[in-house]
Amino acid sequence: MTVHVDKPKGAPQSVTTGPIQGSRKVYAAPDSRPDIRVPFREIVLTDPNEAPVRVYDPSGPYTEAVATIDLGKGLPLVREPWITARNYAAVEVRPVKPEDNGNVSADALVAPCPAERIVRRAVRSQMVTQYEFARAGVVTEEMIYVAHRENLCREATLAEAEATIADGESFGAAIPAFITPEFVRQEVARGRAIIPANINHPELEPMVIGRNFLVKVNANIGNSAVVSTAADEVEKLAWAIRWGADTVMDLSTGRNIHNIRSWILRNSPVPIGTVPIYQALEKVGGDPVKLDWEVFKDTLVEQAEQGVDYFTIHAGVRLPYVPLTADRVTGIVSRGGSIMARWCLAHHKESFLYERFDEICDIMRAYDVSFSLGDGLRPGSIADANDAAQFAELETLGELTMVAWDKGCQVMIEGPGHVPMHKIKLNMDKQLRACGEAPFYTLGPLTTDIAPGYDHITSGIGAAMIGWFGTAMLCYVTPKEHLGLPNRDDVKTGVITYKIAAHAADLAKGHPAAQMRDDALSRARFNFRWEDQFNLSLDPDTARAYHDETLPKDAHKVAHFCSMCGPKFCSMKITQDLRAEVAAMSPEAQEQLAGMRAKSREFLAGGGSLYVPAAE
Amino acid sequence: MTVHVDKPKGAPQSVTTGPIQGSRKVYAAPDSRPDIRVPFREIVLTDPNEAPVRVYDPSGPYTEAVATIDLGKGLPLVREPWITARNYAAVEVRPVKPEDNGNVSADALVAPCPAERIVRRAVRSQMVTQYEFARAGVVTEEMIYVAHRENLCREATLAEAEATIADGESFGAAIPAFITPEFVRQEVARGRAIIPANINHPELEPMVIGRNFLVKVNANIGNSAVVSTAADEVEKLAWAIRWGADTVMDLSTGRNIHNIRSWILRNSPVPIGTVPIYQALEKVGGDPVKLDWEVFKDTLVEQAEQGVDYFTIHAGVRLPYVPLTADRVTGIVSRGGSIMARWCLAHHKESFLYERFDEICDIMRAYDVSFSLGDGLRPGSIADANDAAQFAELETLGELTMVAWDKGCQVMIEGPGHVPMHKIKLNMDKQLRACGEAPFYTLGPLTTDIAPGYDHITSGIGAAMIGWFGTAMLCYVTPKEHLGLPNRDDVKTGVITYKIAAHAADLAKGHPAAQMRDDALSRARFNFRWEDQFNLSLDPDTARAYHDETLPKDAHKVAHFCSMCGPKFCSMKITQDLRAEVAAMSPEAQEQLAGMRAKSREFLAGGGSLYVPAAE
Repeated sequence: MTVHVDKPKGAPQSVTTGPIQGSRKVYAAPDSRPDIRVPFREIVLTDPNEAPVRVYDPSGPYTEAVATIDLGKGLPLVREPWITARNYAAVEVRPVKPEDNGNVSADALVAPCPAERIVRRAVRSQMVTQYEFARAGVVTEEMIYVAHRENLCREATLAEAEATIADGESFGAAIPAFITPEFVRQEVARGRAIIPANINHPELEPMVIGRNFLVKVNANIGNSAVVSTAADEVEKLAWAIRWGADTVMDLSTGRNIHNIRSWILRNSPVPIGTVPIYQALEKVGGDPVKLDWEVFKDTLVEQAEQGVDYFTIHAGVRLPYVPLTADRVTGIVSRGGSIMARWCLAHHKESFLYERFDEICDIMRAYDVSFSLGDGLRPGSIADANDAAQFAELETLGELTMVAWDKGCQVMIEGPGHVPMHKIKLNMDKQLRACGEAPFYTLGPLTTDIAPGYDHITSGIGAAMIGWFGTAMLCYVTPKEHLGLPNRDDVKTGVITYKIAAHAADLAKGHPAAQMRDDALSRARFNFRWEDQFNLSLDPDTARAYHDETLPKDAHKVAHFCSMCGPKFCSMKITQDLRAEVAAMSPEAQEQLAGMRAKSREFLAGGGSLYVPAAE
Repeated sequence: MTVHVDKPKGAPQSVTTGPIQGSRKVYAAPDSRPDIRVPFREIVLTDPNEAPVRVYDPSGPYTEAVATIDLGKGLPLVREPWITARNYAAVEVRPVKPEDNGNVSADALVAPCPAERIVRRAVRSQMVTQYEFARAGVVTEEMIYVAHRENLCREATLAEAEATIADGESFGAAIPAFITPEFVRQEVARGRAIIPANINHPELEPMVIGRNFLVKVNANIGNSAVVSTAADEVEKLAWAIRWGADTVMDLSTGRNIHNIRSWILRNSPVPIGTVPIYQALEKVGGDPVKLDWEVFKDTLVEQAEQGVDYFTIHAGVRLPYVPLTADRVTGIVSRGGSIMARWCLAHHKESFLYERFDEICDIMRAYDVSFSLGDGLRPGSIADANDAAQFAELETLGELTMVAWDKGCQVMIEGPGHVPMHKIKLNMDKQLRACGEAPFYTLGPLTTDIAPGYDHITSGIGAAMIGWFGTAMLCYVTPKEHLGLPNRDDVKTGVITYKIAAHAADLAKGHPAAQMRDDALSRARFNFRWEDQFNLSLDPDTARAYHDETLPKDAHKVAHFCSMCGPKFCSMKITQDLRAEVAAMSPEAQEQLAGMRAKSREFLAGGGSLYVPAAE
């Protein structure tokens, strides 16, 4: 269903709403706080003996049964009462300057989102970041919210969850059977998790990023210098979170970006990240050499007031590291990294991001904007993976993590990039050590360079692995990576691929909530409950469409076969016949079988050979 | 380009031919044997300083510049002189019976391929399998062929290859810098590699499957009981190998399968595998309980005479293991496994495949049909991974491997299936131990059950990992897995996904030939040689099409940016500007930079911190 809304010129005209097929949105509150309504997606199954399956749901109000979305008003203010209670002063908003919107002419100007919000900023004496509260022993509403969210309503099956948690290899992560708000607080206080939540983003449905929680997925959106219009961007956000993106980065450049960002933030239930250096570069006409601290600082304030939840800051690209990239096959492939490298070399000066890092911390702390310390020197090819430049920067990011924590800020660390499989784990190990276990947030990594057009897959392989090893959030890659701008289908493909990687990682880490969905889907599959199989999948629309290509009739949705093997060759059908046969056996025969099973298991426990081959 | 040929009713009407865009077929012979012409695909680059890149090419004569394909005559007889020299007697061909083609009525009968071939069979006293020759110290032409093929014409850069081989983690695999025919012989003699090559498949371009060689990919084709016509199958073969499938399994069931198989074999340059129990089941009307040794044996002879290169034999599904599957979430998901389980339980007898295994070996040896020992009890869900039934069967497959080797046969072992990441490596370790390092051939494994419609990806992750750990061949999974019949696009997507997994595994194992292509593509990318980037990719058509969606003009093919970031934000452009700036520096400034680089490297080797943060 698509809702059309009347909006000023250039504003989004429509946004996709309504539940994912076969699902319904439910809100559930933890017992202690009935006022905290946490969203889940519930998949009701056709078998009355099967409980509905609740899954994590970052899609916000867009997927409610009757979504009443008014983009001009923005989303409901989930966090407003919590933030209000913390008593931050409203500030005089920094006036919008022409360069904020790329000096766009009046006739091409996109109007800002008209939704009115109080803009706040903490003073130095006030606690404001989730890190500061956590260190002080305060459990915030955000922590209660994410604890409930991570458990996927598992209270009822806690005992069961505890029994299964051992089945996994977590590489030192310590995921409890049940997440409590106090556990969240401890993890945030340790710097091992962040809750990106700008106090100027009251529409946010809080989420947590950390190694001891579900692995998260980020999707990038953004207009581009070449094509793309303002109206597309909010729809891209709604579309990305519909399919499971946990955070969204707005990488827009060019005209109207300030105003487009206001539409995105007022209508985003997920944390929004940006790379402020992109906008700063626009403000100086696109020449990296002309950047300076003042324009950057002004941009930080501008975006923090709008409510951006995390900033990528490439403060680890230091002057002495730039020459380390000289022999690389693909040089510097991070946009922010190349901009800062150019600046450093042209001025022959240390990066102002590095030198002014304390001041950056002070600004970001005042709004609780989390750091995403950018890996400006990440490798852009298999040849450059794990090289001196990359790891030199990582050490600096570790140094800056300690500074940011001292300043009260939340921090995560960005990681590569292009890395062959055998070099992935070293990235994780080094990051944990260098950065004091601050959450790692990686782009893939791509495990080979030879498949442009399929880099969601080359990178999905690496993402699943590094997620297993401990990466807390995976930045998606779409099929268009290296080739062009992703369209709607590409965004969906990228998100679903990364949901696969994240879930595979959760399973391998032994997350107690993960396997429930696999098992429910597998039972549906074995019992030929086709509708349930579709609805439990990450993408019910595609699953159903693929099935219907060869067997479109309704009757086929309950058929005990599919078009792959047909009725005679369906192994599941044959297995069911086999089980029926056993059920119909005489009690003696059944007993004999049970004996055989016990004997087989006994034998296997011993490790020997059951039978000698029969003589012919 | 599509060639139309006149054929009898039901025969293939057309087949895709012509080179992959940007590539040309070349044949090269090893110095010692100018008569052995080994095919490669050569990608010529636009930069005159870049050598053409030669890649492995299983696509056969179909991708020659002027492919003269006559499906009725079959492909050129590459191996005919080698086989002739071995002096096997021509045999009276087993007469085709109505049930071989599913008792199809005369008007629906597909005519067999008219290509005439001598059908041979070795007598007991003759060496016939590659294993027997290898054990006897004989280097066959097939071994020379595959040695040259595996090296990708690397003779010239041997020294370089030797220098780079250390960069990988091979988990005990020992890939030499350069493959010699003698090395191939040793690996085959050890049972650690197979060259599937039925003496009745003279059209075959030999290839090798083993842990110390490039990781291979299998694609499945086959009609189905529900839809699909004869004409599709040969085109599916040509299509699958065009994109890189190294072997093809024909899983056809139902009518006309004998005659369709004759078209496939006479026109296949890659090894063809089958599951003979499928056809045997057809012959007894589809009821597993009616199967017996005689009909199975007759089917083996029928297919061996046609030239099938490897048979999946589910001889490890033994009666006492069947009850071990009773508590599974998804029971038995292998078609062959469920058929044999049903038979065993219905008759309450040990499997005739297990009891007659010696006789099966004798038949297969006489034609050099390789064993693919089927994993009939592989897990069909995350819940069932690595369970007692699966590993009980694996132990039996190990036992049967020893029997088959004693009988002179070549053997590989099939593996799962559905396995979460943390349980994958145990599969590889157990297989190597139980089966004496016989090559492992796995289906995926799928690392989660929750993404029907994307199981090429859920399984591509597992395939890349298990390939790295030592699996020699990866059986592809298409997006339609669990849902329906793959179409042409699905087959291509499945093959490309598995080529990614296999190549990522080769890179991680440190295969000396693997990274050359990544590096060539990355250089092209960095230098904005767009055409070269497309042509070096696994799928040039898709890479080009994705690029052209946003930047269709020819001028954009040399543009120093793309639509993702636009000209101002292209990190590679900025890096190039940066390098140009360095080049234009005064000699003193350049010297200073070089000093800085040396200092950085020195510092990094020491592990300390370069600078204290500058005072503000």
